Amino acid sequence: MAKTAITPTRHENYPEWYQQVIIAADLAENSAVRGCMVIKPWGYALWENIQAYLDKQFKASGHVNAYFPLLIPLSYLEKEAEHVDGFAKECAVVTHHRLKADGNGGLIPDGELEEPLVIRPTSETIIGESYAKWVKSYRDLPILINQWANVMRWEMRTRLFLRTTEFLWQEGHTVHATEAEAVKETLMILELYTKFAEEVLAIPVIRGKKPVFERFPGAVDTYTIEAMMQDGKALQAATSHFLGQNFAKASNIQFLNKDNQLEHAWTTSWGISTRIIGGLIMTHSDDDGLVLPPKIASKHVVILPIYKNDTDKATVLEYCNRLKLSLEAQVFHGLNIIAHIDDKDIPGGEKKWGWVKKGVPLLLEIGARDIANNSFFVMRRDVAGREKQSYTAEEFTEQITTLLDNIQQNLFKRAADRQTTNSIEIASLEQFKTAFAKDATGFVTCYACNDPAIEEFIKPLQVTARCIPLNQGNNSGICIFTGKKVQQKIIFAKSY
Amino acid sequence: MAKTAITPTRHENYPEWYQQVIIAADLAENSAVRGCMVIKPWGYALWENIQAYLDKQFKASGHVNAYFPLLIPLSYLEKEAEHVDGFAKECAVVTHHRLKADGNGGLIPDGELEEPLVIRPTSETIIGESYAKWVKSYRDLPILINQWANVMRWEMRTRLFLRTTEFLWQEGHTVHATEAEAVKETLMILELYTKFAEEVLAIPVIRGKKPVFERFPGAVDTYTIEAMMQDGKALQAATSHFLGQNFAKASNIQFLNKDNQLEHAWTTSWGISTRIIGGLIMTHSDDDGLVLPPKIASKHVVILPIYKNDTDKATVLEYCNRLKLSLEAQVFHGLNIIAHIDDKDIPGGEKKWGWVKKGVPLLLEIGARDIANNSFFVMRRDVAGREKQSYTAEEFTEQITTLLDNIQQNLFKRAADRQTTNSIEIASLEQFKTAFAKDATGFVTCYACNDPAIEEFIKPLQVTARCIPLNQGNNSGICIFTGKKVQQKIIFAKSY
Repeated sequence: MAKTAITPTRHENYPEWYQQVIIAADLAENSAVRGCMVIKPWGYALWENIQAYLDKQFKASGHVNAYFPLLIPLSYLEKEAEHVDGFAKECAVVTHHRLKADGNGGLIPDGELEEPLVIRPTSETIIGESYAKWVKSYRDLPILINQWANVMRWEMRTRLFLRTTEFLWQEGHTVHATEAEAVKETLMILELYTKFAEEVLAIPVIRGKKPVFERFPGAVDTYTIEAMMQDGKALQAATSHFLGQNFAKASNIQFLNKDNQLEHAWTTSWGISTRIIGGLIMTHSDDDGLVLPPKIASKHVVILPIYKNDTDKATVLEYCNRLKLSLEAQVFHGLNIIAHIDDKDIPGGEKKWGWVKKGVPLLLEIGARDIANNSFFVMRRDVAGREKQSYTAEEFTEQITTLLDNIQQNLFKRAADRQTTNSIEIASLEQFKTAFAKDATGFVTCYACNDPAIEEFIKPLQVTARCIPLNQGNNSGICIFTGKKVQQKIIFAKSY
Repeated sequence: MAKTAITPTRHENYPEWYQQVIIAADLAENSAVRGCMVIKPWGYALWENIQAYLDKQFKASGHVNAYFPLLIPLSYLEKEAEHVDGFAKECAVVTHHRLKADGNGGLIPDGELEEPLVIRPTSETIIGESYAKWVKSYRDLPILINQWANVMRWEMRTRLFLRTTEFLWQEGHTVHATEAEAVKETLMILELYTKFAEEVLAIPVIRGKKPVFERFPGAVDTYTIEAMMQDGKALQAATSHFLGQNFAKASNIQFLNKDNQLEHAWTTSWGISTRIIGGLIMTHSDDDGLVLPPKIASKHVVILPIYKNDTDKATVLEYCNRLKLSLEAQVFHGLNIIAHIDDKDIPGGEKKWGWVKKGVPLLLEIGARDIANNSFFVMRRDVAGREKQSYTAEEFTEQITTLLDNIQQNLFKRAADRQTTNSIEIASLEQFKTAFAKDATGFVTCYACNDPAIEEFIKPLQVTARCIPLNQGNNSGICIFTGKKVQQKIIFAKSY
């Protein structure tokens, strides 16, 4: 068996493989602060690209950015009963505003606050407080605001990117005059997230509505996009919530309508977080490390110059620089291609494997002989064995956009095929149990009640109800758990 | 006297005028959380433009972004003695990680932490912890990392943008193998900040070194850019710190040098925050509200269509849209011009004043008659009385870039002239006292000791030592406070 860069392999120990890919690609690491991660430059560059793409889309659809306080008074959180129940057990609480000497050379908290403050786990309540002041008339609506921020949820079991105490995200918070408009916004954002996941991250997703027992605390409806990881488990990639008038009532967001009558507004909220980077890693990476879809990679191609002496060096670097410039003049999906020459003084093998593990889509080595032949080998990170193909500089420059497109499509297709292969539709509780026996995973679809009553059947199998997929038509069937006639199928899976 | 949009005027009450400009321009507001502000979309757009410009400059000079935890263990903070002294009195402290019912329908903190955590007031100590792990050899250096983040300092007296409990900033943290390299980095960043303040924000600044008693806690040298506000007070616009080996020793950042010997590294840190938006407001705004330099404005020109009936409306909007497109095809300092048509259903006068108060550089109204004449009046926000000049669509399109350049230069010149007018050089304590008598303000330069001993002379006058300006040459003189012979002049001012 070929030696792999990552130990253990996916097959040997998937969770441990995931951690090792992150370390090998230098994406992030745990900090000494429980559950908080350090996002290292190679990982943060992914987040910057995610931000750049989404921010543009949010703005194109009429949204603007703003910034609201990090700290939320306890009394705000208490306003929405389901909401506070949902978050009370995982809130970091600020109780003091200074430190003083403890008399033993150390420091202790001092200056107790009259009212404790919570580090935002999400911002509906603090933003609602502002919106209540801003909204007076139907002329003030809609409000379409997004915030890029850090949030904190005190998780007991944490994993880099997937579940961390502090994480980065964007949270959209909108206010509308009518229910129809708010629902439309919720679904428009779900489409935007879908397009982003599939077209940029190359992660195929299923759009659906969360069952009532999986909704965001305080929401009327939570919409989700669900992705399948390589181990057949589900990852919730983003959510968009229709909040009805629940938060408008809790925060008192009212407006005078065209008939001069006072009404509660309709609100939505929606978010995607650094968690998606975990999903990106688990969707595409292999036993040699990270694999990046070209549209999210911060470097598309890395050029490794090879030389033995100073004469060679000058020739090789000049050739590489010329190639870099000609590649960077090419446009890939509206942005210039980014080519990087790695001329660091480290051994060639180590250097090359470093870039393989970091997931760069295209990698090439160029030495004096390649230049003499005007022909070099290009390695595609996405194909098995990373087969190399030979190009002249002119050919490569001409074909790089197509190559990157092929890689992007190949990664999406591979993930989509895997999802199809690992999805089944079943019609009985027996089949359900078989599908999730022991270590079995995958997406299982069946008719089921949209009711917490089914949790007693699925929880013992470590299975969760992922979503009620959209566009099911008017069919009906028998819930495999309760035997009741129902209108919807639900997708079940083990999950992250 | 002409009626002004802002009450009170600058002359009547400068601090209150400042608050009213912020409200009138819809930039930000206080939140219910003590000292924390809500940055509203029009204010946040300024921060986004600041980020976009600086981020590009940081990257062009070899820096990359990363993200470190929000919370810092007390034990980290304690590692650098001056540092902890400097920040202990203004730290928000997290002591619990969940909430529980208090038995009276409310919630109280629960789950006490073993070690309290502090919300970062700045990140030298938490980042140093990571750097100590990352740096092993001279080959790992330099590390050139920047972070965009929120930080918290529990201020007792807060003012929107200028001094808030939570603020947004960027903090650069770099590690170098030699002292010379670290000093070079510190000064390179100071130049970068200077260029940004002067060329983008049109704020003239003085570059200098902080006197020893005004240094960042733990720094060897703090460099600063100081700006003069319209009331003659100083505002520290950005700082760049040479930290020597202080933090490297505190965090144990060591590397093997080329001779295989273990050395402590040399570090720097540098930052600019949302405070600069306060400086921007106070530098350029007038008694009618905000005035924005074109290079930082998120809209360069606002077009107000005027019509009385539906026939007019179609014609006017078509003309405005055509104008908008031709304006947006123009490039101003590398970016496309942003033109906005405000067709909201609100009275014309209110609408126009709204944009005046928001500080948009160019404003024009277009009605059927203007279209018939192919001539409309354009209002420049920066000139007294906002005189209007008439243009055809073709002339305006052709000249808009020049117009915006003129506005940018005019604002800078106005501020620079004001700074010159309000700066004096003096040679005696008597003159110093006269210069700062009662409400007197301005920059006062004189020979002075770089020693905390002079604080007893200046503090009673509410004056602070702003900086030792760079490039003073080899002159020497007599300290006006102590009578000692000294090598440097210091600039003094009342300040924000």
